[in-house]
Amino acid sequence: MIKALILGYGFLGKSLIKRLIIEPVPGLLIVGIANSKGYIYSSEGIKLKDLKDKLEENKEFETGRASDLISKDYVDLLIELTPTNIITGEPGLSHVKKAITQGIDVVTANKGPVVLALNELKKMADENGVIFRYEGTVGGGIPIFSLIDKCLRGDKVISIRGILNGTTNYILTRMHFEGLTFELALREAMMLGIAERNPTLDVEGIDTAIKIVILANSIIGLNKKLSDVKIRGITKITPEAISAAKENGMTIKLIGSIEDGELSVEPRLIRLNHPLCVHGTLNAINIRTSILKNLTLIGEGAGESTIASIINDIYDVITHKSASI
Amino acid sequence: MIKALILGYGFLGKSLIKRLIIEPVPGLLIVGIANSKGYIYSSEGIKLKDLKDKLEENKEFETGRASDLISKDYVDLLIELTPTNIITGEPGLSHVKKAITQGIDVVTANKGPVVLALNELKKMADENGVIFRYEGTVGGGIPIFSLIDKCLRGDKVISIRGILNGTTNYILTRMHFEGLTFELALREAMMLGIAERNPTLDVEGIDTAIKIVILANSIIGLNKKLSDVKIRGITKITPEAISAAKENGMTIKLIGSIEDGELSVEPRLIRLNHPLCVHGTLNAINIRTSILKNLTLIGEGAGESTIASIINDIYDVITHKSASI
Repeated sequence: MIKALILGYGFLGKSLIKRLIIEPVPGLLIVGIANSKGYIYSSEGIKLKDLKDKLEENKEFETGRASDLISKDYVDLLIELTPTNIITGEPGLSHVKKAITQGIDVVTANKGPVVLALNELKKMADENGVIFRYEGTVGGGIPIFSLIDKCLRGDKVISIRGILNGTTNYILTRMHFEGLTFELALREAMMLGIAERNPTLDVEGIDTAIKIVILANSIIGLNKKLSDVKIRGITKITPEAISAAKENGMTIKLIGSIEDGELSVEPRLIRLNHPLCVHGTLNAINIRTSILKNLTLIGEGAGESTIASIINDIYDVITHKSASI
Repeated sequence: MIKALILGYGFLGKSLIKRLIIEPVPGLLIVGIANSKGYIYSSEGIKLKDLKDKLEENKEFETGRASDLISKDYVDLLIELTPTNIITGEPGLSHVKKAITQGIDVVTANKGPVVLALNELKKMADENGVIFRYEGTVGGGIPIFSLIDKCLRGDKVISIRGILNGTTNYILTRMHFEGLTFELALREAMMLGIAERNPTLDVEGIDTAIKIVILANSIIGLNKKLSDVKIRGITKITPEAISAAKENGMTIKLIGSIEDGELSVEPRLIRLNHPLCVHGTLNAINIRTSILKNLTLIGEGAGESTIASIINDIYDVITHKSASI
């Protein structure tokens, strides 16, 4: 059995546990669950079904430093789901580095460590013979990294374009179909819980830029930082601009792109019947390759669908370990 | 080296060889190329670059039965690309069966054997310890089977809907945007080489039904035949029906679907801003799963993009063989 620690007990951590209660992953034993307040640990495996009450309330957590559990004495796999910090990457970055150096495999959906240090972490993982997977960081449940890794072998990705942020896409969709102003659509998104209380990272295009950096470094093999991305958000888009686009069979979408090694995020005119032109909170990723040419993937870019990515990554770890034993 | 025989030397066979000249697949040696007229064979590997002249003209082919080359004495891998026959599956079905019983891995883009006998062929492949891959049979280069196999582990596909035939989608697109009649749009498609001279299989929905059967048996684990599909084609769709749909923000598309174990192909109303609503010769496949919920893939459903599927399948064979040696 692969003994796993779930570090981070927010929306994704709780959703993952709920899913594992419905359907366990064969070969996976959750021995630890931790957040910033403390942890639960059992070397025999935590009885997830009994966790029900504790799920919402952090009841019966031992106080103590959860990161002490990141040790080969306790776990084989770290599932890192702490909140994203894009400036320092912490606490995720330290968690991931500690795990890798201890020979512990890592699955994460935390964008912080991956946007700041993907190439370094991959190199460390190779040197330490561990698996490092981060499918959940981009496009929620859309399995973009696995797809390119496992389903397009022999092909080569040349460029990538995408709608990678559900919040801004919701706002632009409401502006397009209802003629709302940006301010009104944003307020509505906040009321519905689609936009966060501080929506700056989303509406200024920074969240999209983070994902573009991860895609560029992971798929195109570049070595880019957030500061390499030309970023323009959606705050200045007027209903008039969208209405003019609409009259011409187009709309305005926030498009992240990697073309000729250049990374950008900006509002762009797009034909309404273009495959990339999806609405609501949907995400869409278009890749252009040598052989296949164009492939577009569309799905929910956040929320519970991300659990599909995390679980597939966990399967990768388990398959790899059982093959190497 | 994996010694491969390419059987079938039409559009796909020639395109594959052109691609292998540009970029060889490491570990793959093409020892035979054959069609109904004859074959070329070299145990040292055929010099693909020297084939240039012969590519178009079948020059210097030995006369003889190409299927005699399907023997472990000559080859490890059969790349079966002969023309599709959906009634008998031949000659593909015999080629594939002979290969599997001889312990030869098989990669095919031939829908005939797969629609008629997928479950039987899979069972034979398991019993004989060989790999049997058929990614190119549905959706051209869209890697639907690999994706579900390798990128959505732990998840479960519940239903599938798709636009799976580029010819009919082109016709419906022209009817929608230009107000053409079915007859006129079909004639245009034939002139452009998008529709075949005998377009019955496409416009009557049979080609889509074939793909729906393959998807149902491969992905949902059913055991369906073509006669189990409720099929209605696009020949009776009028410009007036499309125009009425258009006025309501919709159009009519030929949708293949698998829902609650029922297979159908029929023209359906679809919102113009639905992710599945793609135009021109594009294909789109939407899957609904337990965890991820909705994922849509869009790409060219035919032509050279299919080579991406064939090459990825070849990589699967090579990886598997080198792991098991």
